[in-house]
Amino acid sequence: MQELAEACGGEVVGEPRTRIHGVGTLEHAVTGELTFLTNSLYRDQLQGTRASAVILGPEDRDATQLPRIVSANPYACYALVAQRLFPLPEVVPGIHPSAVIDPAAQVSHEASIGPHTTVGSGAIIGPGVVIGPGCSVGERVVLEAGARLYPRVVIYPDCRIGPRSILHAGVVIGADGFGMARGAEGWIKIPQVGRVIIGADVEIGANTTVDRGAIEDTVIEDGVKLDNQIQIAHNCRVGAHTVIAGCTGISGSTRIGRNCRIGGGVGMVGHLEICDGVTVSGFSLITKSITRPGVYTSSIPSQPHRQWMETLANLRALPQWTQKLKMLEAQLKKNSKEEE
Amino acid sequence: MQELAEACGGEVVGEPRTRIHGVGTLEHAVTGELTFLTNSLYRDQLQGTRASAVILGPEDRDATQLPRIVSANPYACYALVAQRLFPLPEVVPGIHPSAVIDPAAQVSHEASIGPHTTVGSGAIIGPGVVIGPGCSVGERVVLEAGARLYPRVVIYPDCRIGPRSILHAGVVIGADGFGMARGAEGWIKIPQVGRVIIGADVEIGANTTVDRGAIEDTVIEDGVKLDNQIQIAHNCRVGAHTVIAGCTGISGSTRIGRNCRIGGGVGMVGHLEICDGVTVSGFSLITKSITRPGVYTSSIPSQPHRQWMETLANLRALPQWTQKLKMLEAQLKKNSKEEE
Amino acid sequence: MQELAEACGGEVVGEPRTRIHGVGTLEHAVTGELTFLTNSLYRDQLQGTRASAVILGPEDRDATQLPRIVSANPYACYALVAQRLFPLPEVVPGIHPSAVIDPAAQVSHEASIGPHTTVGSGAIIGPGVVIGPGCSVGERVVLEAGARLYPRVVIYPDCRIGPRSILHAGVVIGADGFGMARGAEGWIKIPQVGRVIIGADVEIGANTTVDRGAIEDTVIEDGVKLDNQIQIAHNCRVGAHTVIAGCTGISGSTRIGRNCRIGGGVGMVGHLEICDGVTVSGFSLITKSITRPGVYTSSIPSQPHRQWMETLANLRALPQWTQKLKMLEAQLKKNSKEEE
Repeated sequence: MQELAEACGGEVVGEPRTRIHGVGTLEHAVTGELTFLTNSLYRDQLQGTRASAVILGPEDRDATQLPRIVSANPYACYALVAQRLFPLPEVVPGIHPSAVIDPAAQVSHEASIGPHTTVGSGAIIGPGVVIGPGCSVGERVVLEAGARLYPRVVIYPDCRIGPRSILHAGVVIGADGFGMARGAEGWIKIPQVGRVIIGADVEIGANTTVDRGAIEDTVIEDGVKLDNQIQIAHNCRVGAHTVIAGCTGISGSTRIGRNCRIGGGVGMVGHLEICDGVTVSGFSLITKSITRPGVYTSSIPSQPHRQWMETLANLRALPQWTQKLKMLEAQLKKNSKEEE
Repeated sequence: MQELAEACGGEVVGEPRTRIHGVGTLEHAVTGELTFLTNSLYRDQLQGTRASAVILGPEDRDATQLPRIVSANPYACYALVAQRLFPLPEVVPGIHPSAVIDPAAQVSHEASIGPHTTVGSGAIIGPGVVIGPGCSVGERVVLEAGARLYPRVVIYPDCRIGPRSILHAGVVIGADGFGMARGAEGWIKIPQVGRVIIGADVEIGANTTVDRGAIEDTVIEDGVKLDNQIQIAHNCRVGAHTVIAGCTGISGSTRIGRNCRIGGGVGMVGHLEICDGVTVSGFSLITKSITRPGVYTSSIPSQPHRQWMETLANLRALPQWTQKLKMLEAQLKKNSKEEE
Repeated sequence: MQELAEACGGEVVGEPRTRIHGVGTLEHAVTGELTFLTNSLYRDQLQGTRASAVILGPEDRDATQLPRIVSANPYACYALVAQRLFPLPEVVPGIHPSAVIDPAAQVSHEASIGPHTTVGSGAIIGPGVVIGPGCSVGERVVLEAGARLYPRVVIYPDCRIGPRSILHAGVVIGADGFGMARGAEGWIKIPQVGRVIIGADVEIGANTTVDRGAIEDTVIEDGVKLDNQIQIAHNCRVGAHTVIAGCTGISGSTRIGRNCRIGGGVGMVGHLEICDGVTVSGFSLITKSITRPGVYTSSIPSQPHRQWMETLANLRALPQWTQKLKMLEAQLKKNSKEEE
């Protein structure tokens, strides 16, 4: 346990040689597993846990007799300890014989390329890069050191993926943005000649798509985390360390600041500027630029159907009600005057 | 037709030797095709149909002279008859030479594995399993008997797919859940060490994603049907025979009961408990646990733009109006008193 | 520049031999690049541009001294000029040796098929078709002349893709629609025996899905443009030249007219008829058929969280308020009568 505590700079209280081989929740951990308490609300569960050790904050230091790691940020400590316990499989360098690598691509001899993957001409694959089976890496794509592509990732030509960034299965980077002009006989496609530039330590969830810029680049800055099924349209910029939850769609040319937290199922219209430190509640719609940090919301929680239908009918009738209210107000004023 | 009727236990009325080779709608079916009437509202269309036979309920038994199959559940009867008419292509066992199967995987000699598919070490592929082209089956994945993967499905290591379950193209099972802790310099990834466990007779639509658990497993129980483009986050559980329509997102650790019907474009926040038998209307948001079966809704149907803009302006002005209403009420009370 | 102007039938004003090798925005273009002004609002930026030439409308003809192309539709002109400047890579006919082509497929000798792609029995691949790496083209699929599939596209059996249509990475065409009947012991799958028929000059964005019809076909007409992450359910028809933005979901059997503009994150319930020329605002829900062209909306823009919570509380209280309003009204009437 001592060694694990060092992973996060935590303090060991109790037997430092406690053997830990896995992790578990407070409720379900068993002997040999480490658990964590990040919210004093769950202190009760701590009493019943069968875990062999626990990570907790200084305020809960004496809430258990178990061997423990005390950390000012127990959740971050857990993250680092779990990384130590469950290291990624070691990179076995080499190119699977079924992969199709263009002779004009540069592949580090410390990179690993899986079966049925294609790498286009002029691509540069850095050391420690892992490309899973069935990926398509376009011409002149750059994958920096330690980038990791899970199976079936597609990267269109000319895009760049920063060091240590992780792209999950089904991600598509650099497809054409949705750009067209109306001509006399239909829509005319506007060539999308920008790229997608992804920074360091970014993680992108399964089946998320990030479109290439129309003229300039779409940019995902360092440390951004995107969940699954997200759509980032052309020319967007997502600021460093911003996180976006699943199923959210960001329309073209919108720029999101740093350290924002965007909920799931959110929509943003195009051409907005969202400042740093903005939180958007899940299922909300952003239609204007935001210049002040804070929480923004427009979502409506469900009600039992009939109740909601009544609310909805009243909502639709609002223009009439406010009209009626104005009339009542006027009448009351008139009555008052008459009485005077 | 007799043989088809047996597929669903229906009663044949009229010529049992009527030859049927296909299916059609009441409106467009032609000679040799079977159609169905599941709603007496469409009884009029029955008169004009050119179908050679029809499936219908006992209440419509005499509504046509056509050869017919009478069933208490005509829609289910149609489903079974159509399955008989359009059987899945027979499984041709064998492994395509371009597939890359780890020597430590166990593949049933009654399974079929398509071109450019990879199967990892320790995976177990049961009899009657069909894996389409370009799939990626991770280490130690178990595909039980008769499971069917359409092209380009990705299953991350250690997940299980139950017997006869169907995964459509582009599905990703077991990608990392969206888990991270905030550290001093950015987000720290929390290893996602749970699995995805999928039961029997589940069907999952194209490009849907189900994330692996953070610590424990994400579970999709028997008979669940998921439409396309759905996101199921880590640690969720979806109860048996629940159906979820397209584009819906379920946040982490939410547990949905059995026999629920979740509409399309729905959102659910995390850590909820939804009881059995709940229906959620499309485009609604669930933010609290639900303990009673019934229909829950928060969606707003569109209006012509100007009308909606007026409603919306009134909605935003509500706090002022309710203020004003209170004042009127108070004034009226005061007036009444003065008169006394 | 003269040659570029001819691409769009524009008039050259200034030096026709100006050399252009790229495009840029008004703000960031540099020497050798062409820019465009499509909105007189940005005329100020025109003064500072370092572009070598500009496309603009007749009303802005004299707003700059730069060499320029004057066009009645400057945006469409830009589109055509950019297509001239950035032609698609030439099709290099041939079949990559790692592709698996069924002997009973017909592949034009002018088509190009990438690595690790499979083409099923009876498929017909027209001249000028380009299929990227890792695609799966099912049995009897028809790809008409000049169709283009980016990597990892899946087309299920029997579907048709019209001439010059473009399918981006991760698109899935023809997966089973979400059809099932409730039986005594769970859901019974209804075989989906229709096809997907896609017209000419259609473009479909990354990871979008279009399901095959249950009995008849799902149809995407000529010139339709679908953005990323869209779900089109079974039996839908999308009329010619309609555009749909990202993350939108269309439920089964809904028919959308021609020249509609559907925003992002929109939902439509099933079995609707939407007439030609309808615009739906982003994030809106359509629950009824629409018979008049125009703009339809139900989306609510976000507010600061507390403000929205107050609005929401008032919304929920509406039934009570309208009740109260009715009582006030009645009382006022009573008062008036008493005074008489």
